[in-house]
Amino acid sequence: MGELLSGLKRTHMCGLLTENEVGREAVVMGWVQRRRDLGGLIFIDLRDRTGIVQVVFDQSLGDVFRKAEKVRNEYVLAVIGDVVKRDEETYNPNISTGTIEIRAKDLKILSVSDTPPFMIEDDVNVSESVRLKYRYLDLRRPKMQNYLITRSKVAKIVRDYLIDHGFLEIETPYLTKSTPEGARDFLVPSRLQPGTFYALPQSPQLFKQLLMIAGYDRYFQLARCFRDEDLRADRQPDFTQIDIEMSFIEEDDVIELNEGLLKKVFGDVLGIELKTPFLRLTYQEAMERFGSDKPDLRFGMELKDLSDILKETNFNVFRSALSKGSIRAINAEGCGEKFSRREIDALVDLAKDFGAKGLAWISIDSDGPKSPILKFLTEEEINGIIKRLNAKPGDLLLIVADEDAVVFNVLGRLRLHLGRKLGLMKKDDYKFVWVVDFPLLEWNEEEHRYTAMHHPFTAPKDEDIPLLDSQPQKVRAKAYDIVLNGVELGGGSIRIHSTDIQEKMFKVLGFTNESAWERFGFLMEAFKYGAPPHGGIAYGFDRLIMLLTGTDNIRDVIAFPKTQNGSCLLTDAPSPVDLKQLRELHIKVDI
Amino acid sequence: MGELLSGLKRTHMCGLLTENEVGREAVVMGWVQRRRDLGGLIFIDLRDRTGIVQVVFDQSLGDVFRKAEKVRNEYVLAVIGDVVKRDEETYNPNISTGTIEIRAKDLKILSVSDTPPFMIEDDVNVSESVRLKYRYLDLRRPKMQNYLITRSKVAKIVRDYLIDHGFLEIETPYLTKSTPEGARDFLVPSRLQPGTFYALPQSPQLFKQLLMIAGYDRYFQLARCFRDEDLRADRQPDFTQIDIEMSFIEEDDVIELNEGLLKKVFGDVLGIELKTPFLRLTYQEAMERFGSDKPDLRFGMELKDLSDILKETNFNVFRSALSKGSIRAINAEGCGEKFSRREIDALVDLAKDFGAKGLAWISIDSDGPKSPILKFLTEEEINGIIKRLNAKPGDLLLIVADEDAVVFNVLGRLRLHLGRKLGLMKKDDYKFVWVVDFPLLEWNEEEHRYTAMHHPFTAPKDEDIPLLDSQPQKVRAKAYDIVLNGVELGGGSIRIHSTDIQEKMFKVLGFTNESAWERFGFLMEAFKYGAPPHGGIAYGFDRLIMLLTGTDNIRDVIAFPKTQNGSCLLTDAPSPVDLKQLRELHIKVDI
Repeated sequence: MGELLSGLKRTHMCGLLTENEVGREAVVMGWVQRRRDLGGLIFIDLRDRTGIVQVVFDQSLGDVFRKAEKVRNEYVLAVIGDVVKRDEETYNPNISTGTIEIRAKDLKILSVSDTPPFMIEDDVNVSESVRLKYRYLDLRRPKMQNYLITRSKVAKIVRDYLIDHGFLEIETPYLTKSTPEGARDFLVPSRLQPGTFYALPQSPQLFKQLLMIAGYDRYFQLARCFRDEDLRADRQPDFTQIDIEMSFIEEDDVIELNEGLLKKVFGDVLGIELKTPFLRLTYQEAMERFGSDKPDLRFGMELKDLSDILKETNFNVFRSALSKGSIRAINAEGCGEKFSRREIDALVDLAKDFGAKGLAWISIDSDGPKSPILKFLTEEEINGIIKRLNAKPGDLLLIVADEDAVVFNVLGRLRLHLGRKLGLMKKDDYKFVWVVDFPLLEWNEEEHRYTAMHHPFTAPKDEDIPLLDSQPQKVRAKAYDIVLNGVELGGGSIRIHSTDIQEKMFKVLGFTNESAWERFGFLMEAFKYGAPPHGGIAYGFDRLIMLLTGTDNIRDVIAFPKTQNGSCLLTDAPSPVDLKQLRELHIKVDI
Repeated sequence: MGELLSGLKRTHMCGLLTENEVGREAVVMGWVQRRRDLGGLIFIDLRDRTGIVQVVFDQSLGDVFRKAEKVRNEYVLAVIGDVVKRDEETYNPNISTGTIEIRAKDLKILSVSDTPPFMIEDDVNVSESVRLKYRYLDLRRPKMQNYLITRSKVAKIVRDYLIDHGFLEIETPYLTKSTPEGARDFLVPSRLQPGTFYALPQSPQLFKQLLMIAGYDRYFQLARCFRDEDLRADRQPDFTQIDIEMSFIEEDDVIELNEGLLKKVFGDVLGIELKTPFLRLTYQEAMERFGSDKPDLRFGMELKDLSDILKETNFNVFRSALSKGSIRAINAEGCGEKFSRREIDALVDLAKDFGAKGLAWISIDSDGPKSPILKFLTEEEINGIIKRLNAKPGDLLLIVADEDAVVFNVLGRLRLHLGRKLGLMKKDDYKFVWVVDFPLLEWNEEEHRYTAMHHPFTAPKDEDIPLLDSQPQKVRAKAYDIVLNGVELGGGSIRIHSTDIQEKMFKVLGFTNESAWERFGFLMEAFKYGAPPHGGIAYGFDRLIMLLTGTDNIRDVIAFPKTQNGSCLLTDAPSPVDLKQLRELHIKVDI
């Protein structure tokens, strides 16, 4: 046990002391970053959330000095002393308070500390599992504190902006109904109703639509969402979503509002002025130009379609590809010169990893094009390719011929690979783009049915509704994603708001009318009583904070995250429970 | 399906139109509150979140008029028209826009509506289960909208205040470890780790303490909490808590900060200026004066101890009570005169319902005291009682003799009963009080051990620590509750922040050292690495909104609440799930 505060009040935060306080008495409290003894003086760097201040104890303090001698790293102290200016030669430019220090007069040791398993500093060389086990120490590191402080700040900016724009924050249930369409639900057994289960919400989607039907007009929530999926590096079983819904609006209204929101967030947090309106690309255009529905626009290297140039080709590989898909290429400018033959071979292997059967390449040397495939092509074809790709000496052309989906995927990923390798993606370059006009449906080979590309509540484009019956794969959705530097920040849509279209949608998705009503009847019933046109968007809040802070580890922006297998290494959750608890819930373990 | 917006933009909200807009064109969108046809004119009251505006269609509009004829209640419309001033004799003082109306020029029927199961108006005569099933219609009623709008507003005020005072909002996990001490946990089976379970958090208590240990200094969160208890009328399985924690502070600091917060909330929402500092009562004083640790201070009728007056009494009932407890009384002023003998007998029955063996009463008539017990008392004793209770002709004295706990409970509840019956509790009178110095422990007869009165992390008063071993029942806690008009709005404490005191606390609570470490080891381990003195408070957010809006139904302030048996009548949760889902979670139903 340490000493008691006994009425002692902190007067200043460590890192916020300035030369303005010189000559005043200050009471600071915090953790010992380090202690140095130097010829009758003890120097202690005291740390709190705001930074570090140096405290000096003079031998003449007697008992207080002897107490200071006992202090070790991470002890918690309260120090009373006078703020003084340092001698200029002892200025410390590494800390915000580097021109001043506190001459201690009294000291309380509020808590002692064992030697921590790792140093509390930004560049700590320790495994992530140790960091997660001692999360409360990990979270003391200034870098980690900055992540969570930024997160709190962004939440505030978002709320202020939306409330200023007439939105209400409304909480939706966390114990709700299981409607397994999409990801797997987390289930919660009910004690009061044996044999039944709640589900944790995958998103507040249905509730926010019901709020629109209930006339709330503009809703938002920073909502926790739960998806029981196999965790990838950038996933957590529960995550936070900025969830927004509006009534009496169309796509442009949602887009405009959100451009304002992003402008505000990026302006306030990073001090950069985003230009609005953002670029918009249709899904089709994004795929054709960048091979991705979340294109990274920080660099060019766009895909070009060579199909017309090669439509009469004698080269068998190309010819057979054309019958079921297309031939497209990118120009890796300068790479013909820069890359060794081994590096080019590595690209071929990569393309195969991405799912291509092969990768054709043409290197444009100063004395003309070089390639294993030249012998299969006519001069006209070769010239056509060079012209289409705007190729000049030193360039490397990479060509994929296959079904469209394969061509887009392989070239899109090769493009990103080369962008990274060539350093074309600058961290402080923020390129936003709306991707719009998504297909409503995608064919699921495994389940042999259509699934919704966004979700089953997304409205089709008005002019495409007649195609729902005849050519559902051609129906475009009133859906939009906001993409930043190749990352999908958020996505949304205008929703269906009539029973008959919603019923038709479920039918296209392969639901019987009965099963659709069993699961989603409450929504379709609600549409019968005057549903306004409505739509919205949802952002991955964790991902937004990652982009704003520049970390690529999602666990850095969550105070107490889970590992890949869903464990909390700090509390040891999940864990076995008492049989009595299970009996009360009317379940048993069945391994 | 209704008509499409097709680019039409709303220009005004219905209820916000004023005479300033007279002469302008307006586009409004909303729901039909009612339609009246009157000699070639159709009047439609159009409703949105902000209120109602009257729209007039003239026969001369032709097709538009004929479209308006088709309109029914709860249809969703877009109306284009001119704002005009009404003739003075047609002013409607019941709506904010009562001096103007819109002369319609065009109309879109955006959605039709079946006849709703109940009218959308404040005083609707329909069972709550119908309201909950059609929650989206129930939530259209202006009263309900006001509840949720107030809720959103209060959340904003709370956040702004706390952020202005240096707090960070930090999200804590919703999938965490089961530590069943207190209420029952909701469990969530883990798919990735067969046979193990997460628990939904009963509160973020441990995580907020870990955040203090991690140096975040000031934390808050509007956190959802989950308790699987048998639901009472004012409980929900998940509820929202304003959760606050601070470092380097003592009780007074928490109290002062929170007085500022409540002053701000009540000032901004109700326009009343609360006087601070609030009154403080020790737990002991609250019990002795009001028979409750959540005293309603809107009226007097305080308990008085008669034990000293009656210490030599020959009245057996009193005598035997004194040996194990006390004799106390309240003065129901004027009730001797006002109440019939039957009404007094009803009070006796009520006292027995509350757990008393009996209730003695003395009615002070103009010609002296009347009571069945007078014959057992001396004149000196009777006079002493009258004097102690300040009784005058017309008063009714109610006396309970028993163990202290029974005496306090019965008189405290009788006092409230009489306060209500006599109309002494005014709805717009806001009497705040801090109840402090709670006992740390209470004896649990059933489990035959002490349990924590607040929770096991509450710090004992420094001067009482030595009593922990010898007389634990005498140890007072650094705990405080904020009580408003007899309702506990929130409560908190200074926390234990050292391993040894926390270990001792668990020992007093009957934990073995092993089981304490198994459950809470991560916290006690954290205390070893420099834990700052810290403490905090948590408010029941739902209850706060109830008090601010004046409703006594907790379901009124929650958008999608559960019934007493935990059902959502709208979505039909909880419900049976597919066997496949259970198999994936390694559990089976066991009824």
